[in-house]
Amino acid sequence: MRIISILTFVLFFSCFSIHAEDGSALWLRYPTGAKAIIMNKKQSPTLNIAVSELRNFWQGGIPITLEIQKNKELRALGNDGYIIRASKDGKHLTITSSGEQGILYGAYHLLRLQATGQLSESTLKSLNVSEKPDYRIRVLNHWDNLDGTIERGYAGHSLWKWDELPSVVSPRYEAYARANASIGINATVINNVNASPEILSDDYLQKVKVLADIFRPYGLKIYLSINFSSPAALGGLSTSDPLDKEVIAWWKKKAKDIYSLIPDFGGFLVKANSEGQPGPCDYGRTHAEGANILADVLKPYHGIVMWRAFVYSPTDSDRAKQAYLEFEPLDGKFRDNVIVQIKNGPIDFQPREPFSPLFGAMKKTAVMPEFQITQEYLGFSNHLAFLAPMWKECLDSDTYMQGEGSTIARVTDGSLFPHPLTAIAGVANIGDDPNWCGHPFAQANWYAFGRLAWKHSLSSEQIGEEWLRQTFLPVIDAQANLLTAKVVQKEKEQLFSQLSLLNSQVLQKSREAVVDYMMPLGLHHIFAWGHHYGPEPWCDIPGARPDWMPSYYHRADSLGIGFDRSSTGSNAAGQYHSPLCEELDNVDTCPENLLLWFHHASWNHQMKSGRTLWAEMCHAYDRGVKEVRNFQKVWDTMEPYIDSERFQEVRHRLKIQSRDAVWWRDACLLYFGQFSKQPIPYELERPVHELKDMMEYQLDITNFECPLYGFTK
Amino acid sequence: MRIISILTFVLFFSCFSIHAEDGSALWLRYPTGAKAIIMNKKQSPTLNIAVSELRNFWQGGIPITLEIQKNKELRALGNDGYIIRASKDGKHLTITSSGEQGILYGAYHLLRLQATGQLSESTLKSLNVSEKPDYRIRVLNHWDNLDGTIERGYAGHSLWKWDELPSVVSPRYEAYARANASIGINATVINNVNASPEILSDDYLQKVKVLADIFRPYGLKIYLSINFSSPAALGGLSTSDPLDKEVIAWWKKKAKDIYSLIPDFGGFLVKANSEGQPGPCDYGRTHAEGANILADVLKPYHGIVMWRAFVYSPTDSDRAKQAYLEFEPLDGKFRDNVIVQIKNGPIDFQPREPFSPLFGAMKKTAVMPEFQITQEYLGFSNHLAFLAPMWKECLDSDTYMQGEGSTIARVTDGSLFPHPLTAIAGVANIGDDPNWCGHPFAQANWYAFGRLAWKHSLSSEQIGEEWLRQTFLPVIDAQANLLTAKVVQKEKEQLFSQLSLLNSQVLQKSREAVVDYMMPLGLHHIFAWGHHYGPEPWCDIPGARPDWMPSYYHRADSLGIGFDRSSTGSNAAGQYHSPLCEELDNVDTCPENLLLWFHHASWNHQMKSGRTLWAEMCHAYDRGVKEVRNFQKVWDTMEPYIDSERFQEVRHRLKIQSRDAVWWRDACLLYFGQFSKQPIPYELERPVHELKDMMEYQLDITNFECPLYGFTK
Repeated sequence: MRIISILTFVLFFSCFSIHAEDGSALWLRYPTGAKAIIMNKKQSPTLNIAVSELRNFWQGGIPITLEIQKNKELRALGNDGYIIRASKDGKHLTITSSGEQGILYGAYHLLRLQATGQLSESTLKSLNVSEKPDYRIRVLNHWDNLDGTIERGYAGHSLWKWDELPSVVSPRYEAYARANASIGINATVINNVNASPEILSDDYLQKVKVLADIFRPYGLKIYLSINFSSPAALGGLSTSDPLDKEVIAWWKKKAKDIYSLIPDFGGFLVKANSEGQPGPCDYGRTHAEGANILADVLKPYHGIVMWRAFVYSPTDSDRAKQAYLEFEPLDGKFRDNVIVQIKNGPIDFQPREPFSPLFGAMKKTAVMPEFQITQEYLGFSNHLAFLAPMWKECLDSDTYMQGEGSTIARVTDGSLFPHPLTAIAGVANIGDDPNWCGHPFAQANWYAFGRLAWKHSLSSEQIGEEWLRQTFLPVIDAQANLLTAKVVQKEKEQLFSQLSLLNSQVLQKSREAVVDYMMPLGLHHIFAWGHHYGPEPWCDIPGARPDWMPSYYHRADSLGIGFDRSSTGSNAAGQYHSPLCEELDNVDTCPENLLLWFHHASWNHQMKSGRTLWAEMCHAYDRGVKEVRNFQKVWDTMEPYIDSERFQEVRHRLKIQSRDAVWWRDACLLYFGQFSKQPIPYELERPVHELKDMMEYQLDITNFECPLYGFTK
Repeated sequence: MRIISILTFVLFFSCFSIHAEDGSALWLRYPTGAKAIIMNKKQSPTLNIAVSELRNFWQGGIPITLEIQKNKELRALGNDGYIIRASKDGKHLTITSSGEQGILYGAYHLLRLQATGQLSESTLKSLNVSEKPDYRIRVLNHWDNLDGTIERGYAGHSLWKWDELPSVVSPRYEAYARANASIGINATVINNVNASPEILSDDYLQKVKVLADIFRPYGLKIYLSINFSSPAALGGLSTSDPLDKEVIAWWKKKAKDIYSLIPDFGGFLVKANSEGQPGPCDYGRTHAEGANILADVLKPYHGIVMWRAFVYSPTDSDRAKQAYLEFEPLDGKFRDNVIVQIKNGPIDFQPREPFSPLFGAMKKTAVMPEFQITQEYLGFSNHLAFLAPMWKECLDSDTYMQGEGSTIARVTDGSLFPHPLTAIAGVANIGDDPNWCGHPFAQANWYAFGRLAWKHSLSSEQIGEEWLRQTFLPVIDAQANLLTAKVVQKEKEQLFSQLSLLNSQVLQKSREAVVDYMMPLGLHHIFAWGHHYGPEPWCDIPGARPDWMPSYYHRADSLGIGFDRSSTGSNAAGQYHSPLCEELDNVDTCPENLLLWFHHASWNHQMKSGRTLWAEMCHAYDRGVKEVRNFQKVWDTMEPYIDSERFQEVRHRLKIQSRDAVWWRDACLLYFGQFSKQPIPYELERPVHELKDMMEYQLDITNFECPLYGFTK
């Protein structure tokens, strides 16, 4: 039996190739060789894509009809929604939608079912899918600068080759649009929120237009980040005061110019009065006044403004409270084509934060979550961290704003407050690396963001499973599949079971592992100065902003550790709705994974495990290290199943992650141990370096690995 | 109860001081404050030392009489032996010996019993100790060069300050003699076996005389390593041919000069025709002819020659066989004041070797074991490796030369072959570092060598326990002891139990851990070129001697790994006596810890554990890493019991060892895995670097740590 199993296994892989893959195909590794019958009456660029994708890749063996219908059922699903149904005799499929875009999304849905092995003869015969997206706008934010660099980008340079545009067009622009369409992303802000005024120049708009034309058939709308002082900086006006008539006129003219080039232009994303960016407050105006003037000029064209709530300044007020203090009073003062974009947490994309209290607090204003796909604070593209669990944690958080069940998902998807404008943003992790995202597993986060933006009730497990199967199953061409279907069934199941293991043991645990080895129990922002990669809880830059210092956040002293945000401290807990605020306020009821976010807890604070806080912290750091070592073990078992190129690449990065986890553990436990004055529990693995040696290294943004822990050559 | 326990604990340590210690006191940390009555009739420098040591440090409360007696019982124990007995009423102790030296050794014995807590009121009353050494000459070999460097020394520069001598005398010379006397070492070769002819110059002999005068009262005789070509190189003769008359005359004159300065001079140690050193073979003479001429000139003065059997050359013959092939035929050809000094194993002080087949093979010649105390191949002074288990393993090995029970101990101590000349040598690990040996635990190896040279039946456990107690128990002064004896009893027991843990969990396991993470299963000499510290199984220096290349030793290929020294290979196994040679010759009966020494075994060779050879090797490397991590844990539990200075020092070095263990594991498993083409078993921790990155580093002798694995700042 064993020999037969090995033989068929060999056959499976020799027929179906574990050839080297560079990751450039993303999750869209459809085999060629299909010859499907696809019927479609209407012609349009979008419909043509749907037809072509199915003709090329549909292996189901039965014909498909694509049809735009305007019946009630379909109208309820909107232009993006669709229905996929088998005919009663099971010999025919139909994809219907009230819009072209829905047809294309339906086609990708079907191909996804096929690629993830969810279509058997019987499921195919009874197929009945009905889908509509939870958010109207599902948008990527690219923090790409016009000079080709990417702020917090770890996958090469910008995909947009501004020097070459508009004349030279990279084939990757269309590949990018296709990938987004395949997971339902319908919007993209292609330039950094720290925006250059230059993006609105005529030259650049000509370049943007080329991209917009390429993206359009895929249903991907372009948006731009704008610099609030563009009227002065680019237009030569003496001011950019949003209530100034000339300024208004300038923006009107600019909108007209844009829409003449890009009739379906999406609108503006604005970072104003934040981290040095200009904004309405420079002229004594409010954020609402600033946003509204832009909203007014875009309104005639159905454009919108996404206005970021990420504001803070080095005042006495707890940074975690500032966005709420500034924006909550403005509730109801924004135009209906403004949506306030709020980062998931009140600080800045830390491995774990509580949700921002602005969610739900602004009832009369449309608000949208901003997630970060790029791993600025989660190990760049060196660490494997699947972020769906983090985003789910935020979306599923209960704000209690309209009683129990007022989750952030419901606060933002239009079901709790009936704003017609709904959106969700993800800061992209895409660059010009051949595999798009640097770490082969970083693609999973792009994928997961798209899937959750479409349907926030999807489980992280399902998304992980989908992505793994599409990304790592050998590509089986249609002919071979028919010939050897029976032979390969068993091996396919073995593969699926391996991938499930990878999903449950690695993907699903990876974000929590990062929290454990970097900042467990509510610790946050103890990164090294500037680079947000390695640990520097001791960081102290003379003269630097105190709210950019780790000690501002961890506040370790001889008594304990953590930021007192309870009612005895900054009372940031008070910004949450009852009963959550009381729960957070009390050191004994505050969730332990946020304990040090809300409390300065004693080193001997009793934890639910029975351990002291100090011992619990040590165990968490140790657990993080052990988890990553386990990721390495599980990954290595994948070697027989995966092409060598991606296998080696992931293995290599897991080694870095494993070393970094030890570095984090050692640095934090040795540093905080100086305050706790307690030994690391003796059952745990000990540090392998001296704190003083670690503290001597100045890590800069281009050289962020600690040579003491072994660097990457 | 808990509070009381803590209080008495605090009292214990506050009274009795965990003050910083630099390790300079070695195991001789006797408290001051004793006022003992010591009676002694005869005066002599040696006896005066015994009296003074006891007067200063004896806390037993009862008087002691020292007495030289020539009765039959004492004569049987020799000049070095002694008896310690309590009087019948238990109110008085007597130390007797037939010689002064025995009295001094007896005094140290008593102080050792005291310092290790082995004397209670009752044991004291019935004390009855009778001791004699197993070897006549218990000698240290210093590989100290005249320029102050030490070959394979890792504890600073030479203790001997040749520039200052003879006029300036360091107090450390006497401290050195005292330390040796305290453990029974009675001989020292103070210069490198790769000897400079200069050591025999009149100038240097004047310096040596000063040391000899200081050492003499402690019973420590001086020997010198000589360069065989001294007659030519120093004496200006045209040859150093040992059968040349002028050469003989030169040596005679030199001997006379030496003995006129140092009447009790011990004799010569000679490394001849080995690794580039000159020797009799340069003139067509045998080793015996060379040794005998020196023996003849020393004979009138009762001097001896220790002639090293460490010879090999880059011929086709297996290096492991060469010493046997050269020396065994010379058996019976040496003078009776020549002793052939044989390294424990046939290659060169590897972490594990089989014993040298010369032991027992030379029946008519006195032979002595040469052990290496300095950790040339066991992590320098960075790694904690207690070597008593290694030396015991050699001494207890059965050569079968006179049937079962013909252990190396019995082959060399005069009990199996009745040679009156018996000796045992240890290559010293002593330098001018304040703590003498570099690693605080390296002192334990000096101590262990002395104790085993005295009594080879001592267990490694006992020696470890003795050393730990003397080295780490707080120094309790006599007055305080009497006042608080009851209070401290419990805490003392707690300390003893901690030290026992340290002994069993760290000391006793440490050498096997090094074997595991460096060269398990009989692997040997896969060190990096030149420095003998890190791993370089891949090392390949174009044009270098093949027998200095790791691949000469490991012979890894696609089929398996190991050096075939069975009858199908070099047949080095055939140099051993039956039934051992048959046992070693058969891959299925060869002890697994020497498997790859004697066999080129298949990667899938079935091991006793049920694992394949490859899997077993992986498990061994992994076990080594785990062991060192456990050493760290156990050591950290010592923090409350030990002065901070030594605690931190050991902790620091264990961190290095922990990193190095991972480095060794990764390098060897990744390298050998290329041949086995099998994955590391998935239950084991994975490597954290890439082989190719490791292979890129050229590690030199001054910079031997691999930066990839984190170096010492």
